[in-house]
Parts: sequence; structure tokens; C-alpha cells
Amino acid sequence: MTPAAPAYRRLSVEERRSQLLEAALSLFAHRVPEDVSLDDVAEAAGVSRPLVYRYFPGGKQQLYEAALRSAADELHHCFDEPHDGPLLPRLARVLDRYLTFVGRHDAGFSALLQGGSVVETSRTTAIVDGVRRAAAEAIYSHLAVAEPGPRLRMTVRMWITAVEAASLIWLDEDKQPPADELRDWLVDQFVAVLMVTAARDAQTAELVRGALAAET
Amino acid sequence: MTPAAPAYRRLSVEERRSQLLEAALSLFAHRVPEDVSLDDVAEAAGVSRPLVYRYFPGGKQQLYEAALRSAADELHHCFDEPHDGPLLPRLARVLDRYLTFVGRHDAGFSALLQGGSVVETSRTTAIVDGVRRAAAEAIYSHLAVAEPGPRLRMTVRMWITAVEAASLIWLDEDKQPPADELRDWLVDQFVAVLMVTAARDAQTAELVRGALAAET
Repeated sequence: MTPAAPAYRRLSVEERRSQLLEAALSLFAHRVPEDVSLDDVAEAAGVSRPLVYRYFPGGKQQLYEAALRSAADELHHCFDEPHDGPLLPRLARVLDRYLTFVGRHDAGFSALLQGGSVVETSRTTAIVDGVRRAAAEAIYSHLAVAEPGPRLRMTVRMWITAVEAASLIWLDEDKQPPADELRDWLVDQFVAVLMVTAARDAQTAELVRGALAAET
Repeated sequence: MTPAAPAYRRLSVEERRSQLLEAALSLFAHRVPEDVSLDDVAEAAGVSRPLVYRYFPGGKQQLYEAALRSAADELHHCFDEPHDGPLLPRLARVLDRYLTFVGRHDAGFSALLQGGSVVETSRTTAIVDGVRRAAAEAIYSHLAVAEPGPRLRMTVRMWITAVEAASLIWLDEDKQPPADELRDWLVDQFVAVLMVTAARDAQTAELVRGALAAET
């Protein structure tokens, strides 16, 4: 323990794992998952190769799944929004957090969402679908709908898919329009498609008359 | 050549290939692509295994790609719509053909669109993206827009993704609502999202004022 030695901090297992996943996510931001090796992660994280192999003995596939799972956890947190106050500002705040997440992970977000060719499995698809489902559940809960009917469900799921598509396009187009403009645009689209559905579905019509009418 | 012998018809190479692809697509309608073997295709088509292997020496992957390409070609034809008369009925007719295609291929459509885990490659992704691009181009051409700006492009691509999502949900829900109701709903959504974009984009505003105003 000479004072001149570099101050390596001993990380806990969880901290080390997070550090390696962060390194992996930053590599996924510029390369497709199948082009990212455990050696690359070791280099990016500044740790030895055996250490990375110890954490991910299942190799590339395990690393990719762990990174996807960690991104999915982070996305779930975007949906944490108190059920107070007018609805549309709540939706706007969730979208703000979501777009911040998307912007931060950049191309890695696209790679994770679209799955890398060779690394996509039913497990990774299930992780991505889980996030979509959680997003839909969050919306029903904010709309205070206990049992969404098929028309409302289809509308919400279509809008979520459209938001996903928008974020991929947004990354492709160097994050244009600015995040706050995109956010408002997406909120307005949400209201617009709900209104279209309201014309053919009693449950949605009630929602639009009730919860949303005061705000729009 | 005894008259009593069954009248096997000799198929041309193209006819045989189409027959095998049809058999494959019908199997994909009930099973994920990686669970469909060339032997299954031989059985479904009522031909010998060596024959199927002769047409698809690259195995399962080649069969899947060929089936996807054939489905993509068929989808491209859905977009063939004369540029005459009011716009929204044109869009409705394209959607009619699209939903007929989706309904006919059923689960096979989902499998093809989502890619089967092990069989998805950059080539299959490119085929699916090619159909999406063609759909967008068809819309711009019917809207008589030579150079769609970023806002209009994002709107159209979001709507196309939403239509895809709707058709997957529709298959999941035993084709409810009925195809003509879904079609009208999707057309109304298209108009609604264009109107939302019109509020923040001059090009779209002009379109909505011009081409669409007379019809809605």
C-alpha cells in the first residue's frame, strides 16, 4: 500500500457488473451487438479479459441479454409517474424521460430494440415485449381504466409502436426535431388517435369526454 | 402412359418453386420459421425430399428468405393503385388488399414480419424494410409530394408502423374488428395524425388544406 500507487477501487460484484454493462451499452451505441466481443468490453472498461469472462461465462449472448435487461429496467423507471394532476403533462413527463434515455443510448438503443441479427432469441424478444406491455399498463393506469376493451387496447398499442418508430427515426435524423417538440407532437398524436377511436368505441368516448376533455 | 395412371403434371421450375414456397408459407402460418424443416415442406407439398433440397440447397435459411421475398413481392402489389379520384378511397382500397393479404397468411404473416429468431439476418431485415419503404413511397406519390420533408416523412413512417402493429394485434384477436371497420379506422387515424402534423409543418398543412380538405 504505497501512497503513490493508483487508487484502484475495489468494486462490489453488482458495481462491477454495472460497470461492464455500461461499457457494453456504450459499445452497442456504435456497433451491432454481434460485432461486440467480450474482449472489446474488457478494453472499454479497462479491466482484464478473464474478469469479463467470469461475469459473462455465457459469452456474447449472455452479455447482450444482460445489457438489454439493464436497459429494460431503466426504461421501466421512465414510467414511474405519480397519478396526480392533469393527464397530458404526466404523459409529457414520461416522454421526456423516455427521450432522454433514447438520446443517451443513441444507436445502442436502436440495436437493443431491433435486436441484433444473430443474438435475437425468444428471451430477448420477451424482454422488449415486456417493456411495451409495461408502457401500455402505465397508460391504462393513468387513464384510470381497469379493464381496457379491445379498441382502446389496440389504440394504445399502436401509439406505443408509433412512438418507438419515432424514436428510431429521431436518432437516424440526428435528434431532429428537438426532444421537447417531438414530445409535444407525440402527446398531440395520442389525443388525436384517442379521439378517432372515441368515434367508434364507447369506453374511449367516455375517457375522452371525461379525463381528457378538461385539458384539450 | 396408361390412361389409369394418376395425371401428374410436370411443373416448370418457376411453378415448382412457387408451389414449394406456398407450402412453406402455409407451414409458417402455424409454426415459427425455425421449426419448419425442408422435410416438412416436402411432406406438405407432396413431393420428394431431394426435390425440395434441390430447390433450396441453402436449407432452411434459404427457404425462409425465399418465402419472405415472395411475400414481400405480393405486398408490393397491394400498393398498385391508380392515381385517379379522391385520395382516401384509394388509401382504403390499398388497405383492403393489405388486410386480405394479412388475413390469408395469418400467423405466417406475423412470423415473416417479426423474423424468426435464428433465421433473421441483415438480408431478411432489408426485405421487410424494403416493403415499408415502398409503402411510404406509394403514399408520397398519391399525396403528390415529390420531396417529403422530415415532419411529413416521420408522420407517414409512424403511421405505417402503427398499421403493422394493428395487423399483428388483429391476427392475435381473431381478426376483430372486421376488416372493413379496421380499414376505416386506420384511414381516419391517417387523417388525424396528418392534421396534428399540419399544425407544426407547413408542407403537411398545405396537403391537408389542399388534397385532403375536399374529402374530409
